[in-house]
Amino acid sequence: MFLTILFTFALLFSSSHALQQDFCVADLSLSDTPSGYPCKKPSTVTVDDFVFSGLGVAGNTSNFIKAAVNLAFVAQFPGFNGLGLSMGRLDLAVDGVIPLHTHPEGSEVILVIEGTICAGFISASTNVAYFKTLNKGDIMVFPQGLLHFQFNLGKIPALAFVSLSSANPGIQLTGSALFANDLPTEVVAKVTFLDIAEVKKLKGILGGTN
Amino acid sequence: MFLTILFTFALLFSSSHALQQDFCVADLSLSDTPSGYPCKKPSTVTVDDFVFSGLGVAGNTSNFIKAAVNLAFVAQFPGFNGLGLSMGRLDLAVDGVIPLHTHPEGSEVILVIEGTICAGFISASTNVAYFKTLNKGDIMVFPQGLLHFQFNLGKIPALAFVSLSSANPGIQLTGSALFANDLPTEVVAKVTFLDIAEVKKLKGILGGTN
Amino acid sequence: MFLTILFTFALLFSSSHALQQDFCVADLSLSDTPSGYPCKKPSTVTVDDFVFSGLGVAGNTSNFIKAAVNLAFVAQFPGFNGLGLSMGRLDLAVDGVIPLHTHPEGSEVILVIEGTICAGFISASTNVAYFKTLNKGDIMVFPQGLLHFQFNLGKIPALAFVSLSSANPGIQLTGSALFANDLPTEVVAKVTFLDIAEVKKLKGILGGTN
Amino acid sequence: MFLTILFTFALLFSSSHALQQDFCVADLSLSDTPSGYPCKKPSTVTVDDFVFSGLGVAGNTSNFIKAAVNLAFVAQFPGFNGLGLSMGRLDLAVDGVIPLHTHPEGSEVILVIEGTICAGFISASTNVAYFKTLNKGDIMVFPQGLLHFQFNLGKIPALAFVSLSSANPGIQLTGSALFANDLPTEVVAKVTFLDIAEVKKLKGILGGTN
Amino acid sequence: MFLTILFTFALLFSSSHALQQDFCVADLSLSDTPSGYPCKKPSTVTVDDFVFSGLGVAGNTSNFIKAAVNLAFVAQFPGFNGLGLSMGRLDLAVDGVIPLHTHPEGSEVILVIEGTICAGFISASTNVAYFKTLNKGDIMVFPQGLLHFQFNLGKIPALAFVSLSSANPGIQLTGSALFANDLPTEVVAKVTFLDIAEVKKLKGILGGTN
Amino acid sequence: MFLTILFTFALLFSSSHALQQDFCVADLSLSDTPSGYPCKKPSTVTVDDFVFSGLGVAGNTSNFIKAAVNLAFVAQFPGFNGLGLSMGRLDLAVDGVIPLHTHPEGSEVILVIEGTICAGFISASTNVAYFKTLNKGDIMVFPQGLLHFQFNLGKIPALAFVSLSSANPGIQLTGSALFANDLPTEVVAKVTFLDIAEVKKLKGILGGTN
Repeated sequence: MFLTILFTFALLFSSSHALQQDFCVADLSLSDTPSGYPCKKPSTVTVDDFVFSGLGVAGNTSNFIKAAVNLAFVAQFPGFNGLGLSMGRLDLAVDGVIPLHTHPEGSEVILVIEGTICAGFISASTNVAYFKTLNKGDIMVFPQGLLHFQFNLGKIPALAFVSLSSANPGIQLTGSALFANDLPTEVVAKVTFLDIAEVKKLKGILGGTN
Repeated sequence: MFLTILFTFALLFSSSHALQQDFCVADLSLSDTPSGYPCKKPSTVTVDDFVFSGLGVAGNTSNFIKAAVNLAFVAQFPGFNGLGLSMGRLDLAVDGVIPLHTHPEGSEVILVIEGTICAGFISASTNVAYFKTLNKGDIMVFPQGLLHFQFNLGKIPALAFVSLSSANPGIQLTGSALFANDLPTEVVAKVTFLDIAEVKKLKGILGGTN
Repeated sequence: MFLTILFTFALLFSSSHALQQDFCVADLSLSDTPSGYPCKKPSTVTVDDFVFSGLGVAGNTSNFIKAAVNLAFVAQFPGFNGLGLSMGRLDLAVDGVIPLHTHPEGSEVILVIEGTICAGFISASTNVAYFKTLNKGDIMVFPQGLLHFQFNLGKIPALAFVSLSSANPGIQLTGSALFANDLPTEVVAKVTFLDIAEVKKLKGILGGTN
Repeated sequence: MFLTILFTFALLFSSSHALQQDFCVADLSLSDTPSGYPCKKPSTVTVDDFVFSGLGVAGNTSNFIKAAVNLAFVAQFPGFNGLGLSMGRLDLAVDGVIPLHTHPEGSEVILVIEGTICAGFISASTNVAYFKTLNKGDIMVFPQGLLHFQFNLGKIPALAFVSLSSANPGIQLTGSALFANDLPTEVVAKVTFLDIAEVKKLKGILGGTN
Repeated sequence: MFLTILFTFALLFSSSHALQQDFCVADLSLSDTPSGYPCKKPSTVTVDDFVFSGLGVAGNTSNFIKAAVNLAFVAQFPGFNGLGLSMGRLDLAVDGVIPLHTHPEGSEVILVIEGTICAGFISASTNVAYFKTLNKGDIMVFPQGLLHFQFNLGKIPALAFVSLSSANPGIQLTGSALFANDLPTEVVAKVTFLDIAEVKKLKGILGGTN
Repeated sequence: MFLTILFTFALLFSSSHALQQDFCVADLSLSDTPSGYPCKKPSTVTVDDFVFSGLGVAGNTSNFIKAAVNLAFVAQFPGFNGLGLSMGRLDLAVDGVIPLHTHPEGSEVILVIEGTICAGFISASTNVAYFKTLNKGDIMVFPQGLLHFQFNLGKIPALAFVSLSSANPGIQLTGSALFANDLPTEVVAKVTFLDIAEVKKLKGILGGTN
């Protein structure tokens, strides 16, 4: 009888086994599509495609913003492909700051693991800033596409993890977007109301030209 | 004048004819994506890509579960690609049973054609079992991802068809998932509360190891 | 120890039980939304909300088209709400026809249970008609929004069931859309290339005015 | 210090730069997918991929319908890929008409720039025709998949632009769908209630056979 | 026989007529939902729910930015509800500018009707600015959530219309978001790298406090 | 001039301010919909709607499974409504286990904060178990709807946080689903292949009847 059972379960849905899969680990060597990357061949997928250790390492915060971001988006962790999720790790030294930015394609939730972080976002329809001091264990959500920021308010380094609602949510740092490209200074000033002098200074600092 | 009209209709949207299509029959030779398979070249598509006869044949129910499932998922019927639909045929001999399972990516509706079937699903939030005896012509819906089952309650063979809300909804048979792989017996017991002996027995029956 | 276990499972996710549900049976007394109807209160849901018997009854085909359609859309079967599925039953007497129509919001698959049906759809990008004779057990898919039709080709009544990829896919019968309203005859003729006389005749037959 | 800053911003998210992009210009040389075309390699994208001038040219209205349609769907303007938008330009000479049609995959809004246009759509559930005379600056929306039309009501040529909610919404012209293919005349008559003679005449005019 | 036909078409899908609709005009008096507003009762819907004339009127550009924006989002034009579309009208006097902004929930396409407009957006992943001078009839697309701008480059007033891929795409003006709320000056400076003095000046101009 | 500017920014998009919002905090007092709960009135929303402290508290693991789960789904944290995200906190004492379960409506990623956790999921199409030992800082993803589990493999308590791709992903514990309801013992045995005795025993432990 056992043989019969094995036979049953092996063949019951046999025709579906050849091609169907219930996950789609990104094959980054193929062209992306609007819904994500094409899938790796199922036969080449192992458990290591679903595990990522890159967020376990503290980032180097010896820099201008005294902060570091390690990403686990689909480009770093292909296992997220098609699943509507990604993550990141934020290390903030004392006075460290994650500058103002948006995620064009996803909402975000932050979880504070160590330290004290002031986090906030700005409503698009009313310009109201919603910000608050977050302590260990607190979570805060930043709705899709809205400008938000985080900075260390405490006297010790802070650690936080963020999760996002897309495998490839994107990051647009307002500072870099404005000052780290070759958009003419006059155009930047015109569309932001900033002084020409301020724009030139920040282009200098952040590596922009023109 | 007729020539003018023909000319009009041939050219009116001519630029769109080269590439656009209004269906996307799966090219199973290419890598799947999170939204489904890439499309066959339109010039190779015929009416036979949209018709499938595989559900017209009764499955062989001379097996352990006295039941058979024939699938028309995208792997069997590439015409479903991108359309949010798939189907299956259930043949249930007397005492036949479709064991407990879920469809990770779709909801299901069953339509009874012959016989009497007891069907049910279990709510995730409350563990309530919603089950009922279905007769010829009855339909019952199983919400996405919830455990459900069907078995023949009558004295004659039963026939039913199911439709699902995805071209590739997947099937996770609880029995096979637990007992037909190499997950260590201790782990299976630990995460299910089943006895070690029961797990070993079912691993034996269903072809699992360890 | 048993008490402890019960306590565990009762409280483990207790906070989630109050409000969350894993289905959303339509409360048709509330206003519809773009994603479907608001949900019935979970405490009022029973298994009968998930079962529908209305497709078990043959429609009356003693009419002009020698055919009948029974629907199980969300308005008839609120259990489909939010699940991306609906169904219908087609009874076609000898020479019966389901006239040309579209479903603005869903794809369709037909399953032939009895008889012989000619079914087809027309491509939007190329105007190619894909049509074929379907026999018992055959299925055919009609991609979203495309004009399609079915008629009985055989010498006995035919029975078929259709499934659609939306709880509320809509039905736009071309004949009724053109001739069963108060759109002026001249406008109908202008936008269809039909003769004024033909439009007037069909408005008369189908109940249109102007 | 400036060097430090540049270093920071160059490396802050460096790992994500290799593959991720925040747009997906269609590579029309690859197979389409249900979510749109695969993306061009980011390194080959320029501003010209996001700009299209083809709608700036008036169409030739010296034809049977005294109208012309220029499309900017994904096949003409690959920059729309994955963004849920497309456009078209309608030129209507005096008495010009855009015949009855649907977009199987998208809703439409029309914006009148010059002239006076009568536009309307027909409800699927009630067959009610919603139509109105639109003047310069007016917009009107046509819900997804519903039959609609536009014609010039004024004494001067009319110009309008349409926007649609999909990069590839499709166009199914009812007249062409019925009369410009090889579907047998008897079938067309059967599924539309039109006279055999009328069908034959229109097949002749619009280039259909059989 | 005519009576029979009328009877047929009146009753064929009669059960579906009571509740189903194929559009969902917003009832702005009810609470919004994640998919849009609940629908107005079908019996109260008229053609005027689908037509909007507010974009036909030039905005007043006698202001600081020498520009005006008239919106047709769901709040202004409830007919867009659930259809994935909205529109806006841009009037730009000589030297007028639509300052840097994002739409958190939608992509945008601009169509130039009069004049010469410089338009551009900034890539999130690379900070590259894609910008170009657009002339009458040109369209340009701005992918979802990315910073973009438009300004009049010519010697005459410019007129343009924009279409967006959501009924409620939102608008986040970077200038207002940074300087028109009560976020403390020190926080704004910290997350943007701007000088305290510059922030204070712009808060003064744009109405912010703290 | 300052007054002019303030006037400009106050009125520029003034018509949109009345009703539109860029988030949708759940109003749990209203009926849920397939896309989530209706939104709280914007005027009543404060920063506290976007912050949740409930995950900062360790759960009580003095129970049968030596584990505790604290949820931040939409029912606990209404700020997640409509944003495609939710979270949970897992406390696992030594030998603690999160039993086998699925999330019918979402994918999950786990992040290990303290200790050593063995985590795994089972493929639906192949029954392959993908499992691995995770250390501090590791993340692992569980694709939507698939059976998965976690247990403490180490000699100290473990702490982990999970994020999910839906505000209301649901949780179906296989053990509770099978044994904590009133589904007759014979039915449970029939659809799972378990012994009647085993079913009865577990029904006793987990609180089921019949």
